[in-house]
Amino acid sequence: MSVLVVGSMALDSVETPFGKRDDILGGSATYFSLSARFFARVSLVAVVGQDFPRKHIKLLENHDINIEGLKVETGKTFRWGGKYGYDLNVANTIYTHLNVFETFSPEIPSSYKDIKYVFLANIDPDLQQKVLSQMRNPKLVACDTMNYWIENKRKPLLDLIKSVDILFLNDGEARELTGELNLLKAISWIFKRGPKMVVIKKGEHGSIFATKDFTFCIPAFPIEDIYDPTGAGDTFAGGFLGCLNKYNKITEGTLRKAVAYGTIMASFAVESFGPERLLKLTNKEVESRYRDFQRLTRF
Amino acid sequence: MSVLVVGSMALDSVETPFGKRDDILGGSATYFSLSARFFARVSLVAVVGQDFPRKHIKLLENHDINIEGLKVETGKTFRWGGKYGYDLNVANTIYTHLNVFETFSPEIPSSYKDIKYVFLANIDPDLQQKVLSQMRNPKLVACDTMNYWIENKRKPLLDLIKSVDILFLNDGEARELTGELNLLKAISWIFKRGPKMVVIKKGEHGSIFATKDFTFCIPAFPIEDIYDPTGAGDTFAGGFLGCLNKYNKITEGTLRKAVAYGTIMASFAVESFGPERLLKLTNKEVESRYRDFQRLTRF
Repeated sequence: MSVLVVGSMALDSVETPFGKRDDILGGSATYFSLSARFFARVSLVAVVGQDFPRKHIKLLENHDINIEGLKVETGKTFRWGGKYGYDLNVANTIYTHLNVFETFSPEIPSSYKDIKYVFLANIDPDLQQKVLSQMRNPKLVACDTMNYWIENKRKPLLDLIKSVDILFLNDGEARELTGELNLLKAISWIFKRGPKMVVIKKGEHGSIFATKDFTFCIPAFPIEDIYDPTGAGDTFAGGFLGCLNKYNKITEGTLRKAVAYGTIMASFAVESFGPERLLKLTNKEVESRYRDFQRLTRF
Repeated sequence: MSVLVVGSMALDSVETPFGKRDDILGGSATYFSLSARFFARVSLVAVVGQDFPRKHIKLLENHDINIEGLKVETGKTFRWGGKYGYDLNVANTIYTHLNVFETFSPEIPSSYKDIKYVFLANIDPDLQQKVLSQMRNPKLVACDTMNYWIENKRKPLLDLIKSVDILFLNDGEARELTGELNLLKAISWIFKRGPKMVVIKKGEHGSIFATKDFTFCIPAFPIEDIYDPTGAGDTFAGGFLGCLNKYNKITEGTLRKAVAYGTIMASFAVESFGPERLLKLTNKEVESRYRDFQRLTRF
């Protein structure tokens, strides 16, 4: 049992009202993996440059993440610089240096091709499609995207989601993609384009998960000290897909659990800069916060 | 068993992206009453002018609201004009004509003075204090306020909340009152100033309820067609206090239920202009949506 993630690995420089870090480990595949590993074996596909610190690669290995699909290419690693103001829901990108990511063309190792749970993190929809075409018979395909692809690669994105089971979006992206302000209407719009399930992430306001059969609304787990929201969405996706992979059963019950685990994994991610908190996290803390979360929302 | 509300009755002119209405029945005491009446007998204190349509007064009576405390004064009724853009969380005030409300000095009929559940809707904190001083031995006092009083009557407001059990605020007001961006920290700040409970309303993003013993986070009940958010907060408060009054017991269980009922009452209020939907609402619809809401949030 394994979950495949194809996405970015990066060196991030992040500034929030609570501090600043330079060239720390980042990227969608990183956050996803460090979250999903609590529930399932993770197999990663990504690319880094020769400048990527060996210790980060070691660290993934030490956390039992399968890095057979990680390529080290000539050139520099993808770098992102971002700044958050007091509204931590809004990231202001200072720079994006694609570097080796610019020519990234994901190749799926043959040992990965039978993996049943697939997460296509936020990359060019053409590349997401290319990944999908290499998989033999996935059981559940989820994908994330962003405003850039919605604006510049709308047609490939709409083609891709025809074959995707679960679409992950934040609220702004859902509105932009569908032209619907109301999120329930945005979800109906998406259901007509392929996906059977939609996750709309609203940052500190929680998320809405919907299938054609039921809708599930969940608040965020409230945190007193949010240091850095970078990676929260991918961490959510990691908890979500990892949890489904663990149960290996797509039912209303496992889907609700998966959303709740995704939510609490994201709440850990934001408690420190980069993936620091995820790296120190224990299973016991995860389970304890899950129980707290049930109490926090029950009526 | 009865709930007292002291607040405004108004004639509102409202424009939203979905339509426009002029001089419709509005005001905090109106919304509160039309919501709380599903759970408890409501006794209202408010003032209107001679221009206030008789039919509105009849309507309150027909809905079994005790209007002994409603005064009809010489002059015009309080009028509010507001406009909402696509972000229905933000009301833009076009005008506020206080009219008879300017000299409003609430007097509590003696038949009201033993009422145990008291809601001080958003009016001048000096007047809220004046109401409170007339009550004999209330069991639970809740109050609402707004940015205007936070900015212009901070001292009287802080004096007032020393004797208030539950403070209702929206997220922006909580941040403004406390100087804390994080809502959990804002709640801790408030606990040090008197209230034992806090409700932070986040509009379409639900609310956070906290006592010193537990925190409860709840999403909004999602609605496809929101026509007019005016009055949602007072409708929430009406469902909340009405429910507590019905159970006449302040426990963790009844408080959670009260927050959930407040939330669904607010979801009805926004489904039409003014209080139209609340006027047509049945107990059966309330109970049915409550069950839907449990399913919507359970994991």
